[in-house]
Amino acid sequence: MKKLINQPEDFVKESLAGMAIAHSDLIKVNYDPTYVYRATAPIPGKVAIISGGGSGHEPMHAGFVGKGMLDAACPGEVFTSPTPDQMLAAAQQVDGGAGILYIVKNYSGDVMNFEMATELARSEGIRVLNILIDDDVAVKDSLYTQGRRGVGTTVLAEKICGAAAEQGYDLPQIADLCRRVNLNGRSMGIALTSCTVPAKGTPTFTLSDRQMEIGIGIHGEPGRERIDLKSADEIAQRLTQTILDDTGYSRVVREWDENSGEWVDVELVDPPLQTGDRLLAFVNSMGGTPISELYLIYRQLAEICEQRGMLIVRNLIGPYITSLEMQGCSITLLKLDDELIRLWDAPVHTANLRWGM
Amino acid sequence: MKKLINQPEDFVKESLAGMAIAHSDLIKVNYDPTYVYRATAPIPGKVAIISGGGSGHEPMHAGFVGKGMLDAACPGEVFTSPTPDQMLAAAQQVDGGAGILYIVKNYSGDVMNFEMATELARSEGIRVLNILIDDDVAVKDSLYTQGRRGVGTTVLAEKICGAAAEQGYDLPQIADLCRRVNLNGRSMGIALTSCTVPAKGTPTFTLSDRQMEIGIGIHGEPGRERIDLKSADEIAQRLTQTILDDTGYSRVVREWDENSGEWVDVELVDPPLQTGDRLLAFVNSMGGTPISELYLIYRQLAEICEQRGMLIVRNLIGPYITSLEMQGCSITLLKLDDELIRLWDAPVHTANLRWGM
Repeated sequence: MKKLINQPEDFVKESLAGMAIAHSDLIKVNYDPTYVYRATAPIPGKVAIISGGGSGHEPMHAGFVGKGMLDAACPGEVFTSPTPDQMLAAAQQVDGGAGILYIVKNYSGDVMNFEMATELARSEGIRVLNILIDDDVAVKDSLYTQGRRGVGTTVLAEKICGAAAEQGYDLPQIADLCRRVNLNGRSMGIALTSCTVPAKGTPTFTLSDRQMEIGIGIHGEPGRERIDLKSADEIAQRLTQTILDDTGYSRVVREWDENSGEWVDVELVDPPLQTGDRLLAFVNSMGGTPISELYLIYRQLAEICEQRGMLIVRNLIGPYITSLEMQGCSITLLKLDDELIRLWDAPVHTANLRWGM
Repeated sequence: MKKLINQPEDFVKESLAGMAIAHSDLIKVNYDPTYVYRATAPIPGKVAIISGGGSGHEPMHAGFVGKGMLDAACPGEVFTSPTPDQMLAAAQQVDGGAGILYIVKNYSGDVMNFEMATELARSEGIRVLNILIDDDVAVKDSLYTQGRRGVGTTVLAEKICGAAAEQGYDLPQIADLCRRVNLNGRSMGIALTSCTVPAKGTPTFTLSDRQMEIGIGIHGEPGRERIDLKSADEIAQRLTQTILDDTGYSRVVREWDENSGEWVDVELVDPPLQTGDRLLAFVNSMGGTPISELYLIYRQLAEICEQRGMLIVRNLIGPYITSLEMQGCSITLLKLDDELIRLWDAPVHTANLRWGM
């Protein structure tokens, strides 16, 4: 296992400790229960945005805590859901009286624990809503997941909702916004190599020197198929076309209804993509792929969008939602509107995403 | 060879083409000769900063072209020096009448070609100075290099000199500043794995599953020794201590003397590091190492600096000067003063380094 680590069981806490020292102007870290929070929290009157999930996807989520993005992040052990007590403690720490939005990636453990944390926080008088991200078009029902997995759109939702919170949107408005980002965001990824969870010490799966996995999950879950290595252009084509052709996905999600004071099942359907749509194109490294290769993917992706009459008006290119040292990439396309563009462009200052301040 | 590429011989140009499309607000790319330049260049009255070198170290240098950093970058093929005609054409493109500073990493091919370009540009009436970066404390005289190699301090020099140019410093002032950054910057790196040059298709060197290379060069050149894998803390200790104990390095460099109108040999000596010094700590990924691991290195590095009575007042953590998909890291420590801090903090907006705008 070739990693810069000490004892595998200390990996997450030591990495967070390094972050805390490096970015003490932005964040603080609490241990037992473990969460990372904005140094200036709570901010009175501002909705607080909290996310979380298994570690190993850095910089998501802890690297996105700061001005204009997350108020707190709850990291689990590598590829392991955080626990409700982490989520509750984070909510208590950052609640500024305007409520909390939990942004939850669709993995069964995350969903269950965030729902439990929602109940606990409410019983303590904290207003909480939670919105699910389920944007991975590769597969439906996977290891750890019922329905589609939550991947790249999470990063975009955290940025956009963080900006809205900064600008004074209230909790229902931000929940609606987050849901809209999720329904308009679609992702798919590929792996060239596996990754190794520190506590396990051996690769999560194996790929021969000539194989790649199409539709990989961010924990190394199986995708659609395992095929011979393709060129960057072919990979970009396959991912982009699959994403652009995927419309109308329908699912039922469980959301808290503040009016009735109970959980309700809501049917949500992805809106269509059309000629003339404006897109944010996010080309993401799985961790071990350098940025030079991502630009080859972007080049082909941009060409296909242009052929389809769609306009990429914003982009994000780099390692933002990773799978440890896995080589590979994912593409996320988010259909934009004027409001989403304005919120995307708003200043952000976190450890690992920053502009405008 | 597991990479996102098409034909290996097209890798550099296709990657640049992707950059140009993704960041058309910031940069333009010229082919034959190949260089990347700031979309708004030339900027009348501003000194232009140009760097360049072999590709494969992205985001350096093309990812640093933009506001507050480089005016142009000259990428060679992977791990291959760019040619004088690229450097000359870039200078002609971005010269705003206040002259050009070439920032040159100390590799024999780069040094020779930038000197030739300097002569050519001068013969065309462009004022040019060039400053060498030779900050790698690992080894003296290496594959491709006489003296010490130029590594991580290059990124810091490009940022700081770019800010100075933006603020109206003149050419000799910026050359002095760049020299000062180089003399006060020290780096060293390690590799856990090799990397594969696309045109070759096989790993540059081999390391067994239990080995690492201490003092690796950014082209995979041999370092000080090949040893059994160490823990993150031991690696951080070894790199940090070697850097902090390295003072007084003396070398003779060839610089253009504007007064006499000829090349002169100048002896330069690294100043000492002392208790109370303020440092910029730069922990860099070699490309394949995720940021979560870099924070473990930073944590130990910060502890050692504190023990030595030195204060880290700024940091940079991430993949900025890489070796394709190599796993490993490097540490650069730059001794700061008030002026360097002010220039480091100044706004920058490039494809791959951005803050304050």
